[in-house]
Amino acid sequence: MKRQYVAEALGTMVLVLAGCGAAVFNGGAATTAAVLTIASAFGLSVVAMAYTIGPVSGCHINPAITLGVWLSGRMKSVDALWYMAAQIAGAAAGSAILWVAVHGGHVAPGATTTGANAFAAGNLLPALVAETFFTFVFVLVALGATDAKRGAGDFAGLVIGLTLVLVHIVCIPVTGTSVNPARSIAPALFEGGEALSQLWVFIAAPFAGAALAAAAWKALSAGRHAGADA
Amino acid sequence: MKRQYVAEALGTMVLVLAGCGAAVFNGGAATTAAVLTIASAFGLSVVAMAYTIGPVSGCHINPAITLGVWLSGRMKSVDALWYMAAQIAGAAAGSAILWVAVHGGHVAPGATTTGANAFAAGNLLPALVAETFFTFVFVLVALGATDAKRGAGDFAGLVIGLTLVLVHIVCIPVTGTSVNPARSIAPALFEGGEALSQLWVFIAAPFAGAALAAAAWKALSAGRHAGADA
Amino acid sequence: MKRQYVAEALGTMVLVLAGCGAAVFNGGAATTAAVLTIASAFGLSVVAMAYTIGPVSGCHINPAITLGVWLSGRMKSVDALWYMAAQIAGAAAGSAILWVAVHGGHVAPGATTTGANAFAAGNLLPALVAETFFTFVFVLVALGATDAKRGAGDFAGLVIGLTLVLVHIVCIPVTGTSVNPARSIAPALFEGGEALSQLWVFIAAPFAGAALAAAAWKALSAGRHAGADA
Amino acid sequence: MKRQYVAEALGTMVLVLAGCGAAVFNGGAATTAAVLTIASAFGLSVVAMAYTIGPVSGCHINPAITLGVWLSGRMKSVDALWYMAAQIAGAAAGSAILWVAVHGGHVAPGATTTGANAFAAGNLLPALVAETFFTFVFVLVALGATDAKRGAGDFAGLVIGLTLVLVHIVCIPVTGTSVNPARSIAPALFEGGEALSQLWVFIAAPFAGAALAAAAWKALSAGRHAGADA
Repeated sequence: MKRQYVAEALGTMVLVLAGCGAAVFNGGAATTAAVLTIASAFGLSVVAMAYTIGPVSGCHINPAITLGVWLSGRMKSVDALWYMAAQIAGAAAGSAILWVAVHGGHVAPGATTTGANAFAAGNLLPALVAETFFTFVFVLVALGATDAKRGAGDFAGLVIGLTLVLVHIVCIPVTGTSVNPARSIAPALFEGGEALSQLWVFIAAPFAGAALAAAAWKALSAGRHAGADA
Repeated sequence: MKRQYVAEALGTMVLVLAGCGAAVFNGGAATTAAVLTIASAFGLSVVAMAYTIGPVSGCHINPAITLGVWLSGRMKSVDALWYMAAQIAGAAAGSAILWVAVHGGHVAPGATTTGANAFAAGNLLPALVAETFFTFVFVLVALGATDAKRGAGDFAGLVIGLTLVLVHIVCIPVTGTSVNPARSIAPALFEGGEALSQLWVFIAAPFAGAALAAAAWKALSAGRHAGADA
Repeated sequence: MKRQYVAEALGTMVLVLAGCGAAVFNGGAATTAAVLTIASAFGLSVVAMAYTIGPVSGCHINPAITLGVWLSGRMKSVDALWYMAAQIAGAAAGSAILWVAVHGGHVAPGATTTGANAFAAGNLLPALVAETFFTFVFVLVALGATDAKRGAGDFAGLVIGLTLVLVHIVCIPVTGTSVNPARSIAPALFEGGEALSQLWVFIAAPFAGAALAAAAWKALSAGRHAGADA
Repeated sequence: MKRQYVAEALGTMVLVLAGCGAAVFNGGAATTAAVLTIASAFGLSVVAMAYTIGPVSGCHINPAITLGVWLSGRMKSVDALWYMAAQIAGAAAGSAILWVAVHGGHVAPGATTTGANAFAAGNLLPALVAETFFTFVFVLVALGATDAKRGAGDFAGLVIGLTLVLVHIVCIPVTGTSVNPARSIAPALFEGGEALSQLWVFIAAPFAGAALAAAAWKALSAGRHAGADA
């Protein structure tokens, strides 16, 4: 197996274990203070991994990012599929470790045991809007900040991680924040029930947002070197 | 239409949807923890957009910034007007999406539905002082950090975004923090009432602060290369 | 008057108005959430000013920093004195604006009206230890990060600002955090009483910490280029 | 004594005094808001010291980091031992100053007087899992970000510090977060009792995690320059 797939699995495991672990160990997202704390856990996981496995695999650790990168013509189809598989496998490993840690002790007074995404009854529309739009923002920033010509250079990892903090601040009260199918699939497999029946939202909306972001970045970035583009 | 106008509209939409959305979904700014959370949402929106649309349009996403840049002789008058129009249009789109998301579900226990700015009865003077002074600070940092000769280089987007976090920490308890007419106009159109009758404060004060900042930066930066400027 | 003195006055005014303003408007530092919020206000003020007036004056905005820089032989005595005078004048202007904003409305449910430093009865020793040691840390980082040969380069402003966040997190519960005589003198002049009678602590301890830092940095940095320094 | 050992002692003293001090002065980690505040104190201590003593000693300030660096063949055995001794001595000095500050006043309403690590009865397994895994993450990021060929360059100190914020967000509710034997040994010596009887966990787990990280980084980084590594 290529080392870059291993890196993607490892990075996604860290994201799930740290992000969902922060949610579980800090008692869920019931208070505003918890929102910023948990948002920071997800975002800083990306910062940490971007400067570690970034040079190996690009540090997608999210199938929506991989879709956006693939649609932008920056990677091969076979690699995109393996990246997604590795991300889901890594996320599942993260959820499994979290499951063991929680059930081997008395740590978790939180809402769920592995931090699955969910939305309240009647909130399907806000959930779809939030997950689609903020995946769009997240993937757009990722594509822009890593653009070979006009990107953020060494700042990219920091900027993308801070954008994930932002995305979580807004979306945690609505859905717990997915914008990442791998991060949602793994806990849903462990928790079942509503987490599983709502799972399609956290796969479809992030992929839709990523596709929109790829199209938007292509349009935005095309005109930069044109002299007149009115 | 020029791509840079589209970029300004998009960036301001993200700012309004993420910043005001964070305020709405997190229950308004009634607690100190909410202040830092919401302040981070506004500031990190600027960080995210600066490294994405920055190379396209400069990422003003705020008519007060555009005024300061124009007064500093860094852009044409016609572009400045189109930038402001695009920012207001983008902000209105952000408020509209937020309105739909909120009214399509049961998400928002917050103070308002779109996050309009407001100040309490009797607080007109503090509101004017806070909005004018902190727009002055914000625009001064933006002009300084993006100065061609002595600016912050690749750090500019991060520094300007963190400055917006700072500005929100101080001003949220006073006005909810505008320092950006586009961010205030859009929610006021949706909410009407007091949001509309107080709106002049959130247009006049930010523009006054921006004009002061342009004058201050001209004075501060002029003497740097002089041998003796006592 | 030299422009760098004006820059120091302006920067210190921003620090006091934003930092102390955050404390006043957010209801004082009575809760843990307020600690991080107010700490961020002080630290991000330094980040904002470092990348704006830094190229003009070096952005000391703190007499303890100026003392450390002067003891390190990096500036003239006459400039050091003018820097300190400008910092105190700027801080006083900041406190005055804050005073007007607060008394012109009904904004402040906080502990004090201008954010003066204070320690509880019986806590003189912890106050002295905390202010001396953490000014030592703050000035040591400032001297190290701005060192011409081994400094942090463009990161310096960010690192020094984040260090001030750190210093406030630790010291707010003890003294409200000074580590900056100008930031303490100005509010004490407006508030009088205990703020004035305890003021010597917030002048003596920061200057002592700064002197220790200058000595420590000289010792630490001296050996770097030596082949054997056992 | 070599200056780099002095730097390690000083840096670890700052980490313990600031990080544990933040925990003690802010009333322990009983609330979610305190978690982010205390996590920031530990992480920003690393940021502050990395850009100050980093050029002198590399700023390990943690025996687990030193073990990982030594296992990666980046330092001599004798230096590794002296580094660890200096770190423990510095941590003890930090705990001693904290002890004096607390007992010389009435500052600390917190759980403990020097911020020792601990886990609840029945939580040995979660404690071991959390400390091992998150030391693995922390040391992996440290090794990756400081890698001579594919590292994060000047970003390393910031990234490693933010990773320590992340690690604390997740682990504070479980163990208070060690991932650093020196940070655990010093307070345990002052507090005795359970802090001393549980101390082996906070030595064994961080060292195990560091060893895993050294092996993982060797595997991950080996294949980067290979043309085909399937």
